Amino acid sequence: MDAATWAFMASVGYGAKRMREEHLAMPLVGADCEFLAPALHGDRCEVRSRIARFGGASFAVAHEMVRADGTLLAKGNEKRVWGRFRNGPGTPMKGEQIPEDVRALFREK
Amino acid sequence: MDAATWAFMASVGYGAKRMREEHLAMPLVGADCEFLAPALHGDRCEVRSRIARFGGASFAVAHEMVRADGTLLAKGNEKRVWGRFRNGPGTPMKGEQIPEDVRALFREK
Amino acid sequence: MDAATWAFMASVGYGAKRMREEHLAMPLVGADCEFLAPALHGDRCEVRSRIARFGGASFAVAHEMVRADGTLLAKGNEKRVWGRFRNGPGTPMKGEQIPEDVRALFREK
Amino acid sequence: MDAATWAFMASVGYGAKRMREEHLAMPLVGADCEFLAPALHGDRCEVRSRIARFGGASFAVAHEMVRADGTLLAKGNEKRVWGRFRNGPGTPMKGEQIPEDVRALFREK
Repeated sequence: MDAATWAFMASVGYGAKRMREEHLAMPLVGADCEFLAPALHGDRCEVRSRIARFGGASFAVAHEMVRADGTLLAKGNEKRVWGRFRNGPGTPMKGEQIPEDVRALFREK
Repeated sequence: MDAATWAFMASVGYGAKRMREEHLAMPLVGADCEFLAPALHGDRCEVRSRIARFGGASFAVAHEMVRADGTLLAKGNEKRVWGRFRNGPGTPMKGEQIPEDVRALFREK
Repeated sequence: MDAATWAFMASVGYGAKRMREEHLAMPLVGADCEFLAPALHGDRCEVRSRIARFGGASFAVAHEMVRADGTLLAKGNEKRVWGRFRNGPGTPMKGEQIPEDVRALFREK
Repeated sequence: MDAATWAFMASVGYGAKRMREEHLAMPLVGADCEFLAPALHGDRCEVRSRIARFGGASFAVAHEMVRADGTLLAKGNEKRVWGRFRNGPGTPMKGEQIPEDVRALFREK
């Protein structure tokens, strides 16, 4: 789910490189997953992600793992904080309001 | 959490070797985790696990990840089925009532 | 490199599903890797794999990890045995001559 | 092998916390591994590590993975650079001569 969220953010212009350059971070504060059907080695799967909720400085991403034949293998949720390292990578992080333009990017999707 | 549950089962006599020999399995059907404080590379942590609930053919394990200084870093839950491969590893699995002796082992702990 | 080799085998018709159904396996007996340039989170990379050598019951795969800008990030090699589980998954495995049709598939590539 | 090297360094007083505080790093530039016997889930193993060679700004660590019954499961080598981030974590790193006191700590072991 972590990789899916990073890919999802990249799809609206917030890739890992930009996040790093702007000292942005999105630490995971909670996650859950239900495993509905077993996957086998070699199965091709797609992860479908969507923003389930925008809070002030946090957001929730809902993921569905779907096998090529349409079977729903798993579904899960992540809760993340939107934050910025005050003095660059490795320094303390502070939660921030999620900018309106980020919210808008997801509404347009 | 998976490694912690395997270690926990081993502590009451149901190690991976025995599970394998008796064609037992405990597939994960759900999990959740809350991350409460960040861990740093090199932190020494302890995972404290307990059975939170025994259902008929399922059980729940609650885990707490505690750093050496006592800080609770994360807590999570797993829901697992207790089952047996009908014709050995790789064949279909069937949920089974959790044997009374397994339940007793955890009560004694 | 493991995932790359599985994808490579799938590209000539020996995907994980077929390998499993025919009780074939390709256990790794040796691997090496040189890291030439650091990768950053979010870099897009391509793994270029080729058969470096076919032995009797073993083969070697050479991999190159190349970043989108053409930089060679890493190169590595795997040595694998070609074998079959005598009585299905989980039973002892026996090395086998790599079939001529498998060798041919790679020559055609 | 990475975790074993970190534990090995910690055993001579260079744990992850100290490395981080002193802006030290030991990036991996090469690794190899031979898999000699299969391990099963639940096997207890020990990793035995030793410095195989000290170069100027690089060193090599040799590892042996030994199962509780004494069987050698795997052996591998790592080549690492000894370096320091010039301006703290995330900034460019420069290789450094391995300090004589670090070399001495390993000789005493």
